[in-house]
Amino acid sequence: MRNFNLSKGHTVFFNNAPRITSFAAICGSKESEGVLGSFADVALNDDMYGESTFEKAECKMLSKAISLALEKGGYTEKDIDVMFSGDLLNQIISASFAARDFDFPFLGLYSACSTMSESILLGAMLVNAGYAQRVVAATGSHFASAERQYRYPLELGCTRPPQAQWTVTGAGGCVIANDGAGVKVVSGTMGKVCDYGVTDVNNMGAAMAPAAADTIIQHLKDTGSSPEDYDMILTGDLGALGSRIVKDLTWEKGFDISSNHVDCGEIVYKVIEKEFQGGSGAGCSATVLNSYVLSKMNAGLYKRVLFAATGALLSTISSGQGESIPCISHVVQLEV
Amino acid sequence: MRNFNLSKGHTVFFNNAPRITSFAAICGSKESEGVLGSFADVALNDDMYGESTFEKAECKMLSKAISLALEKGGYTEKDIDVMFSGDLLNQIISASFAARDFDFPFLGLYSACSTMSESILLGAMLVNAGYAQRVVAATGSHFASAERQYRYPLELGCTRPPQAQWTVTGAGGCVIANDGAGVKVVSGTMGKVCDYGVTDVNNMGAAMAPAAADTIIQHLKDTGSSPEDYDMILTGDLGALGSRIVKDLTWEKGFDISSNHVDCGEIVYKVIEKEFQGGSGAGCSATVLNSYVLSKMNAGLYKRVLFAATGALLSTISSGQGESIPCISHVVQLEV
Repeated sequence: MRNFNLSKGHTVFFNNAPRITSFAAICGSKESEGVLGSFADVALNDDMYGESTFEKAECKMLSKAISLALEKGGYTEKDIDVMFSGDLLNQIISASFAARDFDFPFLGLYSACSTMSESILLGAMLVNAGYAQRVVAATGSHFASAERQYRYPLELGCTRPPQAQWTVTGAGGCVIANDGAGVKVVSGTMGKVCDYGVTDVNNMGAAMAPAAADTIIQHLKDTGSSPEDYDMILTGDLGALGSRIVKDLTWEKGFDISSNHVDCGEIVYKVIEKEFQGGSGAGCSATVLNSYVLSKMNAGLYKRVLFAATGALLSTISSGQGESIPCISHVVQLEV
Repeated sequence: MRNFNLSKGHTVFFNNAPRITSFAAICGSKESEGVLGSFADVALNDDMYGESTFEKAECKMLSKAISLALEKGGYTEKDIDVMFSGDLLNQIISASFAARDFDFPFLGLYSACSTMSESILLGAMLVNAGYAQRVVAATGSHFASAERQYRYPLELGCTRPPQAQWTVTGAGGCVIANDGAGVKVVSGTMGKVCDYGVTDVNNMGAAMAPAAADTIIQHLKDTGSSPEDYDMILTGDLGALGSRIVKDLTWEKGFDISSNHVDCGEIVYKVIEKEFQGGSGAGCSATVLNSYVLSKMNAGLYKRVLFAATGALLSTISSGQGESIPCISHVVQLEV
């Protein structure tokens, strides 16, 4: 029964070449000072985006990124069969409320900061199988809503420890279609939950690096490829410290990704100063992928990219109850 | 490019007949007094399940339901390609931490109380397409963790209004496979977010009924079927009031489901007294489906069941900020 051409290990292969035919990103004011400034479709001057709460601003950014991805691809709502989305907020309210703005079905995900790769992976599965013609994959985050929910309200003015990262204010989305031109989604590797016992909620990079290493290695094994086969191995938001750890962990297992590893969290801010280890959040890899990376791929500058967004699956309750941080990374292979 | 045999409207058809080859449910002590008492695999005497917190008990129940589903089907972890799961808790910690117990990939979902049908829908998609041979779909909830998170801590002893429901303590899971015997997943309809402006967080039935009506009608239209074609149209947790509303809403559109509509929330408790409108929570439809309904189907008592779990996509933040409650329902068609 099983079509073994379609999967091996934890990797699924897309023989019908679903394509990312359109993409868009919107970012906050601080983010626009860095690489996103030249590549994002919209850079906000006001991180409240004209709304009365951080959460509403986050939702509006996500909705805008989706609208822009449709618009840039020449699509209307009728062209879209379903949307995969999720975010960091409790009960993914940004995604659920953004979905209310669009007249197509919604399949809600939660995978923390690995939502961008999980949504592309599932979207490509549906398009490749013929279940859907065009799927939206999108996510985002907001610094202020994430701080308030996961750590402390900004008004408290708490000091951040040096291992901390800075949640990106921004959202990104794309359309995956069975027709039209664009970057192909060639395969995807489903991640397993990895927990190395890290309990420091300020050290997401260290917590998530093992999950990234695990799925990247699984992907390389399943596809019989080596790190050099990729122009870029792009992790989501490990930051500077987490990026060192993922390079070490993969190297220990015989895979040297050091020459072509890039982390969205490491490159998103112009000067990593107040942000310490760099950017994080579901919006980090969503904005970098859906602006800088896909633009460069469409321009032919990168031909093969392995995109491994990474997620820390903790909550304030789980941390408060003394639990360590289970993490996950889903991988998609993108090719021009 | 698109295989139009595979989808119409928002409905996807599974021509390779993925089957629910194994299922299991575990429920709390109060739940065991009702229909679940005779059908659930495990009925707890102690709702803490030997754990120190409600959240850990909820996670343990979910993990146990998954283990039991594997065991009853004669499966080991190696037989499973991926697990779809989610729950009601912030950052779906029950599902994420349960996934840590198993050595297979995890794709996290958030769809509130419609998680059971979303996970079966996506699981059947993967199996039918040949991406996976066997998939786990599972979810659960716990009365005490849900009350504390969404409403008030139990210790406050708050009075419940008459339109309220009672979150089911329980978890259910199943294995969807491309080989073996069991109930077939014939098709699935992806739901759209519906928001009729209900803001009463104690009246989930009224909030969710329009979403159930919307997807059920969409399914009937896409498949060209009528309500009489089903032995049972099973909603997730609309409760008594919500069930009346869904019957009215579908009737208004020319579909009379009154003779074969059953709501898991309405039947889960023996006498609906303290529970007012009945049961709710992701565990409500998960336990009823994965014990009573699938057992009866395997015994040939029901041949065709339309399963429409329903979810309210609110958070305490969204309600606190004056938002109404967006809701969703995903539908799967089950046949012997």
